[in-house]
Amino acid sequence: RTRHGRRGHGQNGCHSRHQHGYHSRQRNRHQPNMEAEADEPDEQTADLTSSMKKKRSYSKCRDCIARVQRFLVTRLGEDWIFLVLLGITMALVSWTMDYASAKSLQAYKWIYGELRGNIPLQYLAWVSYPLIFILFSSLFCHLVAPQAIGSGIPELKTILRGVVLKEYLTLKAFVAKVIGLTAALGSGMPVGKEGPFVHIASICAAVLSRFMSCFSGAYQNPYCYTDILTVGCAVGVGCCFGTPLGGVLFSIEVTSTYFAVRNYWRGYFAATFSAFIFRVLSVFNKDAVTITALFRTNFRMDFPFDLQELPAFAIIGISCGFLGAFFVYLNRQVVLFMRRPNAMTRFLTKHRLIFPAVVTLVIATLTFPPGFGQFMAGELMPRECINSLFDNFTWTKISGSPPPGGLGLSAAWLHPDVSVFLVLLLFLIMKFWMSAVATTMPIPSGAFMPVFILGAAFGRLVGEIMATLFPHGIVFDGILYRIIPGGYAVIGAAALTGAVTHTVSTAVICFELTGQISHILPMMVAVILANMVAQGLQPSLYDSIIQVKKLPYLPELGFGHMSQYNIFVEDIMVRKVKFISSQSTYREVQLLLDSSSLSSIPLVDSKDSMILLGSIDRLELLALCDWWVSPERRLLMQVRTVRDCTIIIKAWEEAEMDKPMEIDEIRVDPSPFQLVERTSLHKTHTLFSLLGLSHAYVTSIGKLVGVVALKELQKAIEGSTRSGVRLRPPLASFRDIINHNSVPKPPPSSPTAVSSSTSSPSARTASHNLTLLPPATPPQVPSSFTPSSSNLRPLQRLLEGEEDSDDEPMV
Amino acid sequence: RTRHGRRGHGQNGCHSRHQHGYHSRQRNRHQPNMEAEADEPDEQTADLTSSMKKKRSYSKCRDCIARVQRFLVTRLGEDWIFLVLLGITMALVSWTMDYASAKSLQAYKWIYGELRGNIPLQYLAWVSYPLIFILFSSLFCHLVAPQAIGSGIPELKTILRGVVLKEYLTLKAFVAKVIGLTAALGSGMPVGKEGPFVHIASICAAVLSRFMSCFSGAYQNPYCYTDILTVGCAVGVGCCFGTPLGGVLFSIEVTSTYFAVRNYWRGYFAATFSAFIFRVLSVFNKDAVTITALFRTNFRMDFPFDLQELPAFAIIGISCGFLGAFFVYLNRQVVLFMRRPNAMTRFLTKHRLIFPAVVTLVIATLTFPPGFGQFMAGELMPRECINSLFDNFTWTKISGSPPPGGLGLSAAWLHPDVSVFLVLLLFLIMKFWMSAVATTMPIPSGAFMPVFILGAAFGRLVGEIMATLFPHGIVFDGILYRIIPGGYAVIGAAALTGAVTHTVSTAVICFELTGQISHILPMMVAVILANMVAQGLQPSLYDSIIQVKKLPYLPELGFGHMSQYNIFVEDIMVRKVKFISSQSTYREVQLLLDSSSLSSIPLVDSKDSMILLGSIDRLELLALCDWWVSPERRLLMQVRTVRDCTIIIKAWEEAEMDKPMEIDEIRVDPSPFQLVERTSLHKTHTLFSLLGLSHAYVTSIGKLVGVVALKELQKAIEGSTRSGVRLRPPLASFRDIINHNSVPKPPPSSPTAVSSSTSSPSARTASHNLTLLPPATPPQVPSSFTPSSSNLRPLQRLLEGEEDSDDEPMV
Repeated sequence: RTRHGRRGHGQNGCHSRHQHGYHSRQRNRHQPNMEAEADEPDEQTADLTSSMKKKRSYSKCRDCIARVQRFLVTRLGEDWIFLVLLGITMALVSWTMDYASAKSLQAYKWIYGELRGNIPLQYLAWVSYPLIFILFSSLFCHLVAPQAIGSGIPELKTILRGVVLKEYLTLKAFVAKVIGLTAALGSGMPVGKEGPFVHIASICAAVLSRFMSCFSGAYQNPYCYTDILTVGCAVGVGCCFGTPLGGVLFSIEVTSTYFAVRNYWRGYFAATFSAFIFRVLSVFNKDAVTITALFRTNFRMDFPFDLQELPAFAIIGISCGFLGAFFVYLNRQVVLFMRRPNAMTRFLTKHRLIFPAVVTLVIATLTFPPGFGQFMAGELMPRECINSLFDNFTWTKISGSPPPGGLGLSAAWLHPDVSVFLVLLLFLIMKFWMSAVATTMPIPSGAFMPVFILGAAFGRLVGEIMATLFPHGIVFDGILYRIIPGGYAVIGAAALTGAVTHTVSTAVICFELTGQISHILPMMVAVILANMVAQGLQPSLYDSIIQVKKLPYLPELGFGHMSQYNIFVEDIMVRKVKFISSQSTYREVQLLLDSSSLSSIPLVDSKDSMILLGSIDRLELLALCDWWVSPERRLLMQVRTVRDCTIIIKAWEEAEMDKPMEIDEIRVDPSPFQLVERTSLHKTHTLFSLLGLSHAYVTSIGKLVGVVALKELQKAIEGSTRSGVRLRPPLASFRDIINHNSVPKPPPSSPTAVSSSTSSPSARTASHNLTLLPPATPPQVPSSFTPSSSNLRPLQRLLEGEEDSDDEPMV
Repeated sequence: RTRHGRRGHGQNGCHSRHQHGYHSRQRNRHQPNMEAEADEPDEQTADLTSSMKKKRSYSKCRDCIARVQRFLVTRLGEDWIFLVLLGITMALVSWTMDYASAKSLQAYKWIYGELRGNIPLQYLAWVSYPLIFILFSSLFCHLVAPQAIGSGIPELKTILRGVVLKEYLTLKAFVAKVIGLTAALGSGMPVGKEGPFVHIASICAAVLSRFMSCFSGAYQNPYCYTDILTVGCAVGVGCCFGTPLGGVLFSIEVTSTYFAVRNYWRGYFAATFSAFIFRVLSVFNKDAVTITALFRTNFRMDFPFDLQELPAFAIIGISCGFLGAFFVYLNRQVVLFMRRPNAMTRFLTKHRLIFPAVVTLVIATLTFPPGFGQFMAGELMPRECINSLFDNFTWTKISGSPPPGGLGLSAAWLHPDVSVFLVLLLFLIMKFWMSAVATTMPIPSGAFMPVFILGAAFGRLVGEIMATLFPHGIVFDGILYRIIPGGYAVIGAAALTGAVTHTVSTAVICFELTGQISHILPMMVAVILANMVAQGLQPSLYDSIIQVKKLPYLPELGFGHMSQYNIFVEDIMVRKVKFISSQSTYREVQLLLDSSSLSSIPLVDSKDSMILLGSIDRLELLALCDWWVSPERRLLMQVRTVRDCTIIIKAWEEAEMDKPMEIDEIRVDPSPFQLVERTSLHKTHTLFSLLGLSHAYVTSIGKLVGVVALKELQKAIEGSTRSGVRLRPPLASFRDIINHNSVPKPPPSSPTAVSSSTSSPSARTASHNLTLLPPATPPQVPSSFTPSSSNLRPLQRLLEGEEDSDDEPMV
């Protein structure tokens, strides 16, 4: 399903580069004339046309139109036009989807309300409505584009790494995702739109860039592709909730390892424009009176919180860290369970609609308001949940007494017989597993929004407890500060989403969503604490999905690990490289192609010299081999001998296959990425993640000595950080203490190496490489290709380390 | 003053890598024992020590202390401890400086107030107070560390590019900058603390990392240095105003080209911690009651603005773009004027204190409140200005009538005889040139704060005009919206700072400073418009200073320029490479070292093969040559022949110098960065800016054929984008139309190349490189070292383009 090396080195990009090279050349030839024409002062003469002959004026007119056309074509190639178009498209898509799903939810509530008094019918409506929508969404995606299923962020992260995922950025996937997501959102199930929206915006950007490439060749370049997708991601998050700032930051944190600052500006431009249009549309639709935040809060500004409340915020942060890690764990376990091969899952795979149907049925039954739903505010739809959790009341104070005016939807949380705490706790527990399960359904669904609601509920719970503990507020310096449980809810929401996605920009999204920034410091503290805990326990939700889906990825390097500077490419590279030389016969090439699935094959001068000349794309070689024994070439021979075809053809083919390959007829990429044996792991990792490499050749004085692919690097790093895809977390040192028995320590280096590097220059040994040698590897002549056993030790250690990490407990 | 290649390829990093390799080896050897000891259950036995012999208990105690010590040493190497320490240090520094300068300004105002009634004495005090402080600051910096002068951000940008600026990150510079800046801020002159603070924080981070390297070898690694400085910058901006979010973003935008997302998290952590401590300190000092924003605004939340006000916001944005570009232009002209060699500047250079003295005198005289200052709110200190400009009154409404309660400092803007508009306009004009001139004084000074004030004044002016045009507010949908001039001031401040620094994160800083995010969309629109205009007209203030100071830099590549993919390394590289071969004699090396100032010299196999073996550090070669004819080595010879020393020594030296060099005794960097001839300009630029390279060797099948340094790349790009350091701005296309006669177009390519690339595979010519050829360069055999004239054409074009760009008008 995946294919490596889209933009590695133009190996695969050859063809497109070649093509647009031609295009741009054509453009270059035309432009000087074009602009020279435009230079002519026919603006002035144009004013005189009315006084001239009609025929003349016609030609003038045509000329004018042609000039306008050319001007438009040139201008349309501009970057900012692309950004504006992307912004408008996404704003329209986002608004339309919001509108449709809101109307759908309205209809849902209306049906439910109309049937009041008839409990069985009401139940039927409550359950069947989402069931129909979810089944439609699932079926539609299955039929149109199965790539539309799920969040989309993990796949985009992989694509931005430089891996080509087939069919992920097509118009078909766009249609499936938009319609499927609208249906899913309209069902009222706990699924979000943030993740799918990133996917939708990226498809939009990719399609738009194909359209723009009619006007400017720059959009065809494989390097630009990343820039375009990065902006797409930013716009996706930005116009999802109308949060341009947080959108750009969130998309950077979630999808990139290294970020080009020039894209930052472009992302802001497009996201702001998109968010602006998105909000203006809702003003014109009279949803809002003016452009304000989506979930606007109305906390008092003067004293938003007291310093003494900080411990409570810190507790929210730490708890959210644990909750977030548990959410990721639960989500992964559900997916893994569904993938385990047994009778039930085989049955479910066969009948794809049963799993979503059962999940929807169970969730809808449990939230049925007259039933169990009354104890967990089941009647509230996701957005209503957030609005009510962020409100400015203190529920524990008003529960029991007659509800004050303006309470609105928050009334759903106040059960006459059950305490607010119990309702919140029940909501938290039930929605927790519901969200974790619902996001695994085969429909387009994100986890951001459900997790956001969970966090808000948890924060509200803590806030209400605080309000009960300090019913009259906190006294400081003679002034009384009332506790605002809504503020706790906002902080909880930011902290839990931050923990699940391993980002800190959720705080920014929260500010933009609520329109209030007064809680900035406690929120930052809570989000950072949640991140510290969650990163120490689990990979992010997106990395977890990447691991489960077995997509290619590159783990992060931790900070401050000496090993990343002491491990070199020669320790991790594959020494047995498959290659073709300029003397290779067609048969050898054919055998090589049959025996391996490399996307590009290195070309060396000769087997003896092994000097790397470049790399050749697999498709190129396949085409060459096919063409060599093709009927067209056979014709040349068949003209002479017509009889006894098959034998002669066979013989001819055999003879042809033994001829040496004509290297001159193949496109050779003369600059595949090269490393040397002494390139450190740190540098290799940096290069791979910066340039999105899938593999690099290792050369020693021009000679090909090995190859490093993503897989080798991945293994080495996983050994080095001793933990899967997760970042080296700040608390990991404490983890190391706990299970340092199970993790092998690097073996002590040989004493000779120590003495040689501490000695004075005159005492240096003959090997000129020695002075640069790391402690772990003994002196070695650079051109020795056969690894000594001691040389392999770091690699073995790494692999052992990796195996150990598999045994590590998940939570 | 500058030295290239600090972290290029470990050429210079060799020594440190070598050293820390040893350190870590030592650590590796110790750790297993250490932790094995820790494993022993002596915690349990420790409880029993009291019942045992005293001698035994002593040894136990010592053991315990040693263990604690070792534990601390291991833990102190942790990254988060570094971040916390950095945060605390910077918060303390920032708070102390704020406190000291606030007290100084208080004293200034007190003296001025006490002398009321005596105008001449009052004038003397008003002028001499800042004069003393500025002169002290200037003198102190001059004596202690001249590197402390100025903003610091341009230098840091250069350092983060990988260039070593001597003495910029020393404790001396720290002391000079802190004390000098405190004095400058305490003088009430229009100078800011943002830029110098970035410098201070970076020094702090660098010094702290040297301290931390006692505990963990990771801090010694040259690669970590960038990570550390990046975090330092983020903390610097973050704790300057207590704006962690905006601080991190601003520092990214201002200093980086490519940003590692892992540093984002670290920056947030440190900046939040720092901002938190910074704000808590002011709470404990009773400056503030609780943690709130620094310049808190109190606009109404429900309807912050109406859509119909947007054109006014857009006008602010566009005007601020022009103003910002003009500010950069004015600032540069002042600096360039001061650097022009004539009698006056020679005099001023000799007597360094005269320039700041004159500037201070003029500015203080003009702002003297009873004099001209009354017409431009001269009595307000910078922070008071911001507070009053952001207030919630509409000055045009209250001017004339008795001032309402709570007006406070804003009263300074209301002159009994002069209109508010005139006061604001005068303030804007006078402060504009004052700020542009004041920031060129030889003291530590930033331009962020003065520009921020200018922007606020401009925004306020527009806001007051709007309030006069619509005295009863804007009616929309039956509801009346009152105009809030304070909101306009906030937007103006963000837009102007954004225009001057070419950043969009000033909007985030504004939200954090004011504590209100309700104006997010108009502010983003204004900031983006201001950026579009300013980027089209001028480089950013920091890039302008980099250009004026002639620091090495790498211009940005624009988006969508085909040429960046069609220009290759071979077009821009220097083909005459200075090298040493393994057969070089000491004399040749000595000659090479004398004739060039290269920081590292390539080592090739032999002059004929030219196969690149690695690169050697200049210092290494110097040391080797010195040692070869050193007295120590001479002793070996002198033992035999003692008489007639000088002649013999001369002869011996001559003979020795002709011996071939002993390569084995030198540290050779075996992995200098290599490019191939066909690497595109885009890829080269990406690699240089990502990896912070200062130069890279160009090899063809292992053979050294050229070298590309920063300078060559700079020239090529400046030709390519046809404009100095500035980004390719979105409006640049309009600029191209205006002066496209002066800019040479790329010549049309040769028709043969066109036909060859459009033809079928069988029609391809013999050159296997041809199919990859760009349109601009004709087919060429890769191993031909002598460039054909046609091959040089792109280079010539680039250089011509660059020359043309010099003629381009500045504004």
